[in-house]
Amino acid sequence: MTSLQVELGSRSYPIHIGSGILHEPELFRPALRSGPIVLLSDDQVAPLYLGALRETLRGERPITEIVVPAGEGSKSLAQVETVCGQMLAAGIGRDATLCALGGGVIGDLGGFVAAIYQRGIAFLQVPTTLLAMVDSSVGGKTGVNHPLGKNMIGAFHQPRAVIADLDTLDSLPEREFRSGLAEVIKYGLINDPGFFAWMEENLTAILAGDSEALVHVVHSSCANKAAVVARDELEGGLRAILNYGHTFAHAIEAATGFGTYLHGEAVAIGMVMAADLSRRLDLLRESEQGQIFRLIQAAGLPTHAPRLPAEEYLRYMRIDKKACGGQIRFILLRGIGEAIITGDVPEAALRQTLSAFTE
Amino acid sequence: MTSLQVELGSRSYPIHIGSGILHEPELFRPALRSGPIVLLSDDQVAPLYLGALRETLRGERPITEIVVPAGEGSKSLAQVETVCGQMLAAGIGRDATLCALGGGVIGDLGGFVAAIYQRGIAFLQVPTTLLAMVDSSVGGKTGVNHPLGKNMIGAFHQPRAVIADLDTLDSLPEREFRSGLAEVIKYGLINDPGFFAWMEENLTAILAGDSEALVHVVHSSCANKAAVVARDELEGGLRAILNYGHTFAHAIEAATGFGTYLHGEAVAIGMVMAADLSRRLDLLRESEQGQIFRLIQAAGLPTHAPRLPAEEYLRYMRIDKKACGGQIRFILLRGIGEAIITGDVPEAALRQTLSAFTE
Repeated sequence: MTSLQVELGSRSYPIHIGSGILHEPELFRPALRSGPIVLLSDDQVAPLYLGALRETLRGERPITEIVVPAGEGSKSLAQVETVCGQMLAAGIGRDATLCALGGGVIGDLGGFVAAIYQRGIAFLQVPTTLLAMVDSSVGGKTGVNHPLGKNMIGAFHQPRAVIADLDTLDSLPEREFRSGLAEVIKYGLINDPGFFAWMEENLTAILAGDSEALVHVVHSSCANKAAVVARDELEGGLRAILNYGHTFAHAIEAATGFGTYLHGEAVAIGMVMAADLSRRLDLLRESEQGQIFRLIQAAGLPTHAPRLPAEEYLRYMRIDKKACGGQIRFILLRGIGEAIITGDVPEAALRQTLSAFTE
Repeated sequence: MTSLQVELGSRSYPIHIGSGILHEPELFRPALRSGPIVLLSDDQVAPLYLGALRETLRGERPITEIVVPAGEGSKSLAQVETVCGQMLAAGIGRDATLCALGGGVIGDLGGFVAAIYQRGIAFLQVPTTLLAMVDSSVGGKTGVNHPLGKNMIGAFHQPRAVIADLDTLDSLPEREFRSGLAEVIKYGLINDPGFFAWMEENLTAILAGDSEALVHVVHSSCANKAAVVARDELEGGLRAILNYGHTFAHAIEAATGFGTYLHGEAVAIGMVMAADLSRRLDLLRESEQGQIFRLIQAAGLPTHAPRLPAEEYLRYMRIDKKACGGQIRFILLRGIGEAIITGDVPEAALRQTLSAFTE
């Protein structure tokens, strides 16, 4: 097992990463407040791991279990009201700890419920997907969807601890694992050339689920995200580099209808496109663009979006821009490991990129 | 006009208090972020003051107006979703400022929407009731009701400024004005003997709506609340003294069916009861109890609750206790101007108080 500390002053917390650590009560104990525990999970994850977690926490505190339907549909205000109702009916007070066991949806929903239930209770994350381990563990973003937009309702709420048991990845479908790898590769690209090089060399071990390799994957991803977030907790500016590949990805997801691609798959294509755009603007060398393309491809991730009229993609990028209330911003690379934020992208270059990586 | 600064580090903000200040754009300007303004109000307040506020802000920023039904029913997650939907449809981004024009419901709802819309936007309060001016202006509490409990969903979100135009009190029904006075008297009781003495001497001017007296009422109330909150922003302990009279008040409101008493009226009775209990426990002198009783009575506020079996009131106090996840706590007085928090109240004394102040 390895641990790292996310440094946020009085809201600092540890991330524990290892195999089988779901069974170690001493990792959970320091993160629990004095009151009862609420275990929140979904109906796919609960049958696999909720029993084990209940066993680990048995005798620590009274436990209330809440299971919601798996899937993005549970990220809604209606579901928030339902979960809060179950907690109120169980007499859960402010001294409780909400423990979210599952993937990104459960982490986002559980974190948001913890943020607003009686104006905020303690939160503990037990991610069971690679994406949740490397993405949701750091940053404190929580929230649900509005019918008019994804993640449009939410709060910043830091967990008191993250406990990432790598054994839970055994039950993760291969495609979801590879989708999570897209975000892992992203951390190398935006902030850590050494980590990128390590992935190039160790991809086989990673894809085989080698335990030591996975510890390094999750640890380095969290450390890189923490380094970026620590410099910009409430998303003023720098943190935007975490969205590398995402302007394209959101347009791809929207234009193809949400659900065609997993999020990480769309991000993979978006990262390929953003690398291409960086090269066209003379920021990135052609050889580096090639390295990026090859690693994403070798990870079994898609590199091209469906060929639709460029106008279709551009329209969604502009909506994305409108929702953010500002100018359309691109995250580009000035080399592997160094991201920059710019609004200054000629539309001609953008259209060339879209044309080159759609098929 | 007078102003005071609520000191909360990087989240410090000014409260401006005066007559006609709704018409002064220079008070609003420093609190606006770069993006559009959302004006939120209800269908009782909007016809009275929304036009004036629109006029004041004209030319500053694009304005989106949202009007919800007046009344406690608008403090719901469903209403939050509706308001967020109107904001999304209008393309409101993170650089917006939400300005809440109205009483406590609009402040609570607007503050909560501002707290969670795209994970938080700027918030500006323009309270139009005495209660909202003296209670909601300080503390950062926002939130809505859950069908299973009042204020059970919420967030701490500080405004960037509070602009309390005393002229808006002209349209406030007399009964609501007196109800607001209950909280004003509370600040004297828990924290400020000088302010209590001033109220004893100036009650006539206050009840007549004298402008100078009202400035002092609102300023002293906000200053006292700010002093308490500054020492305990996230409600660890001391802040609980702000709930003086409220344990009784909640039981009275629940036992009589919400709506029989205005909140401040129930608080008035609760403060009389808590003073009586303090005297029975030899904390408060009988002469001081008499002063408290007389001021509350002279303010035209009720001093006795309906005679129901004591068990009825006690049951609701215990539910209140359960919802707070801990022991039943009483805020008592060790003299006018000094409140203490205690869980150590013999049930016999409590029953005597309930019997003495029900009729």
